[in-house]
Amino acid sequence: MAARRTLGFAVRNYSQAAAKGWLTEDFLDSLREVVGSSNVSTATPVCEQHGHDESMHRCRPPDAVVWPQNVEQVSLLAKACYSRGAPIIPFGTGTGLEGGVSAVKGGVCFNLTQMDQISELNAEDFTVAVEPGVTRKALNSYLRGSGLWFPVDPGADASLCGMAATSASGTNAVRYGTMRQNVLNLQVVLPDGRVLHTAGKSRRPRKSAAGYHLTGLFVGSEGTLGLITQAILRLHGTPEATVAAVCAFPSVQAAVDSTVQVLQTGIPIARIEFLDDVMVAACNRHSGLSYAELPTLFLEFHGTENSVEEQVQATGEIVQSNGGSDFVWAREQEARSQLWAARHNAWYAALALRPGRKGYSTDVCVPISRLPAILLETKKDLLESKLTGPIVGHVGDGNFHCLLIFDPEDAEESRRVAEFSQRLVRRALAMDGTCTGEHGIGLGKRQFLREEVDEVALSTMQQIKVALDPKNLMNPGKVL
Amino acid sequence: MAARRTLGFAVRNYSQAAAKGWLTEDFLDSLREVVGSSNVSTATPVCEQHGHDESMHRCRPPDAVVWPQNVEQVSLLAKACYSRGAPIIPFGTGTGLEGGVSAVKGGVCFNLTQMDQISELNAEDFTVAVEPGVTRKALNSYLRGSGLWFPVDPGADASLCGMAATSASGTNAVRYGTMRQNVLNLQVVLPDGRVLHTAGKSRRPRKSAAGYHLTGLFVGSEGTLGLITQAILRLHGTPEATVAAVCAFPSVQAAVDSTVQVLQTGIPIARIEFLDDVMVAACNRHSGLSYAELPTLFLEFHGTENSVEEQVQATGEIVQSNGGSDFVWAREQEARSQLWAARHNAWYAALALRPGRKGYSTDVCVPISRLPAILLETKKDLLESKLTGPIVGHVGDGNFHCLLIFDPEDAEESRRVAEFSQRLVRRALAMDGTCTGEHGIGLGKRQFLREEVDEVALSTMQQIKVALDPKNLMNPGKVL
Repeated sequence: MAARRTLGFAVRNYSQAAAKGWLTEDFLDSLREVVGSSNVSTATPVCEQHGHDESMHRCRPPDAVVWPQNVEQVSLLAKACYSRGAPIIPFGTGTGLEGGVSAVKGGVCFNLTQMDQISELNAEDFTVAVEPGVTRKALNSYLRGSGLWFPVDPGADASLCGMAATSASGTNAVRYGTMRQNVLNLQVVLPDGRVLHTAGKSRRPRKSAAGYHLTGLFVGSEGTLGLITQAILRLHGTPEATVAAVCAFPSVQAAVDSTVQVLQTGIPIARIEFLDDVMVAACNRHSGLSYAELPTLFLEFHGTENSVEEQVQATGEIVQSNGGSDFVWAREQEARSQLWAARHNAWYAALALRPGRKGYSTDVCVPISRLPAILLETKKDLLESKLTGPIVGHVGDGNFHCLLIFDPEDAEESRRVAEFSQRLVRRALAMDGTCTGEHGIGLGKRQFLREEVDEVALSTMQQIKVALDPKNLMNPGKVL
Repeated sequence: MAARRTLGFAVRNYSQAAAKGWLTEDFLDSLREVVGSSNVSTATPVCEQHGHDESMHRCRPPDAVVWPQNVEQVSLLAKACYSRGAPIIPFGTGTGLEGGVSAVKGGVCFNLTQMDQISELNAEDFTVAVEPGVTRKALNSYLRGSGLWFPVDPGADASLCGMAATSASGTNAVRYGTMRQNVLNLQVVLPDGRVLHTAGKSRRPRKSAAGYHLTGLFVGSEGTLGLITQAILRLHGTPEATVAAVCAFPSVQAAVDSTVQVLQTGIPIARIEFLDDVMVAACNRHSGLSYAELPTLFLEFHGTENSVEEQVQATGEIVQSNGGSDFVWAREQEARSQLWAARHNAWYAALALRPGRKGYSTDVCVPISRLPAILLETKKDLLESKLTGPIVGHVGDGNFHCLLIFDPEDAEESRRVAEFSQRLVRRALAMDGTCTGEHGIGLGKRQFLREEVDEVALSTMQQIKVALDPKNLMNPGKVL
């Protein structure tokens, strides 16, 4: 009953926010007082820049953008918003794919990129603290020479705190885990401006059983519970040896069967990425390569020299037994970089297949045993739906993306894309999978979340949201 | 405001519960209707059996014990308790160490051990579903011959759902993670009887970014948010080769320095357990062994034959450079079992040091770089406090236990134990650590939780508790 009453309050507040009674010169002055006039903008182009991410979701600009310099300023700005009822939208690099920064109710966008300190590097404990302005590439540059690195790699050079907010993962997750496994502690500014340390201030033991796991709750909360202003991350030792390879297969089934067998054999593979024939062709064209245009695996092995050789040999036997080609090797750093650049440019390579069109990426994830079936059905569906949708995937985790390239002005094609996406998600759900392995729910998958979890789970999430953000000011309209 | 009002309601209800207005024959009949008369008991010896775990916390018996046979019965029983305002205490194997099953407000103890189905074993995906009556040994027996195993091993043959509830870990966590990393999905009966699937019914992808991470919230919630009635677990491949070894060191510093270096070198060690001289002596006496009575590491290596050899060699070099003895090997299953039985019997070996006395185990965890300092200070403190407290620890995770053996009837000695424990926790907290690596907060560490996390984190946990258990019926008095 309490929850319902609070929810009612939230709904009322929601409509106030839409009415924007809070948007006064006086309110803007209170923001300027905190960060200085030059760090508050209401200019249309600036707001529009902050109203969208890399996805197709329509730009919904905030009413103002602020650039806080430190956690104290974030706290004061949040307090100002809270007291007036202004929505708060956290903004990192804007590289999200589900419309997470879209200001659907207007509000104040907190651009956190100027908070870019890296601190508390502790090489002995493999931990470091980063602010939201630190991207994964910036951190790895900082770590160069230390023998340490941060492996979670979604492709984009995203903010690490943003990656925590969306529970990002990517190519290395099969070996090193997602952000969930690599965040030890978060500093979070709650909507009312209070500063929370999810695991106690600056604490960083490898494990803890002390109280509710707030760190795990905020990882993947997509800015709807608070603003992440610092993350203490778990680092990993740079592997002594790294070898990458490319291998083509006669069929999708053969490539995916190989993946499943590699995992089942317990080979600690660092990366195992699938590209279908269409995707390889697109990469060849876009990156000037000449890989066989067949279902393909990009692989990477990490370890000691001996262990890498052993992994390569065991994987080679599996691949061969499935009719895979000989490996094309990339043993040197430069060759490896070229290989992974091709993989990471898959999105742009896909877009280049139909210049002038837009892209939409699906993101389902299934238990790995179901991968062959879902990939084959999906390829068939793409053909039947007459859609351009090269497939690329972190198949070691059971996660893959169809990069659908289409003309959003073409209503008929857009409908086919929407229907295909829906069928794909339902196919994944029927196989005990999820509608999103790593992009999050954001704006675009709220309906799918309702199909994925039951009413009790949804209402539990809603109760948590209401408890922690009773005025529904934190990134409203997302996730739930 | 809503939260405060609800809290007020909870407080009122609390005192009702203490008054036990709910405890009527009519209420007991409603329980009997669900599970049958033979599965409800109010007999004093039965209730007393269920009023304590393996810790020193005073027995606080529930008013009734029920034995549900399936989730539908758990749901109906919870509904009955909810409508009358009766506290609900989940009970697995009773092997907890922080008084988690103590019925401080009375109530109904749900003994879940008769729900002991293992289902949905999927060898290709490395997943299985277990009910609360399934212990880790039962699961591993079931898996024998499948090439799979479940590695989390707290020593006791605990219920796997209970291990999820307390975020258990133990000797293998350094390599395979704690329960947090090995639970994919939970079925939970909420206090009002609704059935929640934290990640959607029967879903088991390796990763997901769909909505708030309810699985992570319920792991470690210690029965205060709901009753875990099924867990979908992540299994691991049985290693091709396993080798265990024992190594003695001239000093605590040398043993712990070796541990830190093994981890920093990136050796994927499966177990690395520290025993101080007192602990080794106790184990020798209790298990009829003859290890050198010096600071000692018990180690285990998993992998392919080659990789294990490589790990052993690299570890050997580190150990030697720190003045460690030659390894005493345990290559065969039987020898390894004997070695780990000695380690797992440490608790009883410690108790045998002073027959008739009781044991209390501390549980701090610090970043590994701080281990040498905290262990040395703690050894010194033990001496100065004139306490018997052999030390054993999962040092690869920075987690160790002083097994304090004392006479609880001796007020002066009990005071020294309490003061020592307090100093130890504060020492760990001052080193960015936690008061509990794996035993949980339960009854005994609530004050320490207040020192470990700040007011904002505590109130956030409290808000979540109130939102999910507004009547404060789930295992009241624990954690918060």
